[in-house]
Amino acid sequence: MEDKNIIESYHTESIHPGFSVDCIILGFHKGKLRILLNRFDRVDKWMLPGGFMLKDENSDQAAYKILKVRTGLKDVFLHQFHLFSDVSRTNIEENRDLASKLWPNGGDTGWLFQRFVTLGYLALVKYDKVNIPILEGEELQWHDVNKLPALYSDHQNIIMKAKEYLRTMAPIIPVGPALLPEEFAITELRKIFEIFLDVTLDRRNFQRKMLAEGYVIPVEKSEEESEEKPYNAPIMYRFNPEKKDPFNRKLF
Amino acid sequence: MEDKNIIESYHTESIHPGFSVDCIILGFHKGKLRILLNRFDRVDKWMLPGGFMLKDENSDQAAYKILKVRTGLKDVFLHQFHLFSDVSRTNIEENRDLASKLWPNGGDTGWLFQRFVTLGYLALVKYDKVNIPILEGEELQWHDVNKLPALYSDHQNIIMKAKEYLRTMAPIIPVGPALLPEEFAITELRKIFEIFLDVTLDRRNFQRKMLAEGYVIPVEKSEEESEEKPYNAPIMYRFNPEKKDPFNRKLF
Repeated sequence: MEDKNIIESYHTESIHPGFSVDCIILGFHKGKLRILLNRFDRVDKWMLPGGFMLKDENSDQAAYKILKVRTGLKDVFLHQFHLFSDVSRTNIEENRDLASKLWPNGGDTGWLFQRFVTLGYLALVKYDKVNIPILEGEELQWHDVNKLPALYSDHQNIIMKAKEYLRTMAPIIPVGPALLPEEFAITELRKIFEIFLDVTLDRRNFQRKMLAEGYVIPVEKSEEESEEKPYNAPIMYRFNPEKKDPFNRKLF
Repeated sequence: MEDKNIIESYHTESIHPGFSVDCIILGFHKGKLRILLNRFDRVDKWMLPGGFMLKDENSDQAAYKILKVRTGLKDVFLHQFHLFSDVSRTNIEENRDLASKLWPNGGDTGWLFQRFVTLGYLALVKYDKVNIPILEGEELQWHDVNKLPALYSDHQNIIMKAKEYLRTMAPIIPVGPALLPEEFAITELRKIFEIFLDVTLDRRNFQRKMLAEGYVIPVEKSEEESEEKPYNAPIMYRFNPEKKDPFNRKLF
């Protein structure tokens, strides 16, 4: 089976019943946190890239497949974060409408018209590494996570919960290394902490702290490279793999 | 429906298919972390108290019902922590055996003989507040979480994952207030931190830090009460509701 045709692999006999997977795919670009959403042809609303779990796979495998098809990436931070099970979260009419658009020739879609619980996955990806693929019948686009379009089902709620989760987990998840390219400006790292911790950080204190802790180290350029750069190019940094995020709690 | 008869409420038409809920119920007693397990009559292995989600309830409601029946408690720390979905986690033969023992007269049990994903819930309870009920056909017992008996299905694995989760989340979850009685000895609090953080803490430093941060405050006894106590009774403490756990990470 071609990975791109995962939608065609879903039918009554193949999927685990009443269970879906939805992926929050986050990237960081130009100072803002972006979320990758998809929209199917003839469907008004944007959605979280999602799908179902086949009977012969576990939920991680289902999520990795969804992520791979939409981003081309596989070795990324991807973890389940919450199971959504509100009794009224599945809008059967909305599903019926979606089914008629995804499978215009009809067929085996009855399994969609029932209550679903969905497992929310969180993926943190390096924006520049994502090559948005051309998929048949499906559009993909990055959106500012704070300016969301109208969303399908309870996907708005799933995104809210993911943001809450990230604020709680920011000291535990290595958000910087997951989101930033190999080399980055210190401002970008500060911006990420500001977003995830929902605080404003002092520019100089932040830089001093990051350097003092040895969490980031300046990238040394060869003389030749330096000459090529314009004079006002920012100093670039990379993470020190031997140091832990200094935001992580300390014991005694 | 009587709460105690939740097992009787499970049948093909009533439950969300292929989805169960298992509860890790933890209490702290005599310096050790204890887990509440149950065992059904004629079944060899101990289990995590669990059950299914009815079509008209969400997973939290299902978990609260399971907890209430087994502990009598309802206002406790109870949160989902992981969805277990390994393809081979359901042992159909084991389920068939269990069904024949739980429903010896047969009946509608076919829905049990399929793959299940299970949502793990974590409950932190005050050991002294739990009144283990007498349930028909079911035995309940506290076990040392580090000396587990033979367990049903993948419940051993679910417990391992919960311990891992707790070590990660210890700085975020208020474990002390959730597990300790209103008044406690400082040694008990230290023991809890040692267990959850998997470290050994210096007795004096710990006490000094807890007091200095104002996280705990000594309980003042009236003169009369003091006279009743033997001379070597430990000083008791209570949590200061205005202070946060000093183990929580600090920002700049």
